[in-house]
Amino acid sequence: MYALHPQLADETVPVCDLDLCRVLLSTDATYPWLVLSPRRESLRDLHDLNEEDGIATLEEIRRCSRALVDLFGPDKMNVAALGNQVPQLHIHIIARFTTDPAWPGPVWGKVPPAPYDEAEREALIARLRTALGQDG
Amino acid sequence: MYALHPQLADETVPVCDLDLCRVLLSTDATYPWLVLSPRRESLRDLHDLNEEDGIATLEEIRRCSRALVDLFGPDKMNVAALGNQVPQLHIHIIARFTTDPAWPGPVWGKVPPAPYDEAEREALIARLRTALGQDG
Repeated sequence: MYALHPQLADETVPVCDLDLCRVLLSTDATYPWLVLSPRRESLRDLHDLNEEDGIATLEEIRRCSRALVDLFGPDKMNVAALGNQVPQLHIHIIARFTTDPAWPGPVWGKVPPAPYDEAEREALIARLRTALGQDG
Repeated sequence: MYALHPQLADETVPVCDLDLCRVLLSTDATYPWLVLSPRRESLRDLHDLNEEDGIATLEEIRRCSRALVDLFGPDKMNVAALGNQVPQLHIHIIARFTTDPAWPGPVWGKVPPAPYDEAEREALIARLRTALGQDG
């Protein structure tokens, strides 16, 4: 049975469920940062996805990337499945700006996470749901 | 017309061409590290791939990941499309070990690149071609 890894649950808030993946918003407000978690058991690496789930994941990566592009107009999107700290497969989708504190490096470990204001975060989640066509 | 970005050409050596992507080996011997470059013009982000090319890229990511798993038996695979330094779409496929110098962080910028011994690198390229079914 699928269950979100506790560390991922700690570091994100849920946005919505797409066909395959749970969409999560990172609690680090430094970057517009989504995490996709395929709702399947015992996945570690991207190549553990079967062909059908791989195609669905790719499509959902695309939808999340476009939602962040539409909402934030970033300079670049970063997409990464690393999982060195949390062994459950998850895909980071991060909107990057040439003015962000980690540019042009990767975001991990660069600056301490900045918390969202709660109302701001809820407003962002609502906008993300709309951008993902999940506000019904 | 497709041409590999000069910085990518500098930091890698060619392994082979799969149906869509050029497979490159990073010149940094610290990690078993492949880079996939889709042979298409004017791509920046993963979501710029059309549906068919996206599926082909995913399949080629899978093949490269499995080749590194078969050859190196890593603890984890990292797959990432960042492109903050080189704007041409490219996908990193990196075999990670709990004993490697960047673990559990991402590899970028952690330790200075270590050069391959040339004979060792050529031998690895030959083994990679075989693992990718491209030694014909």
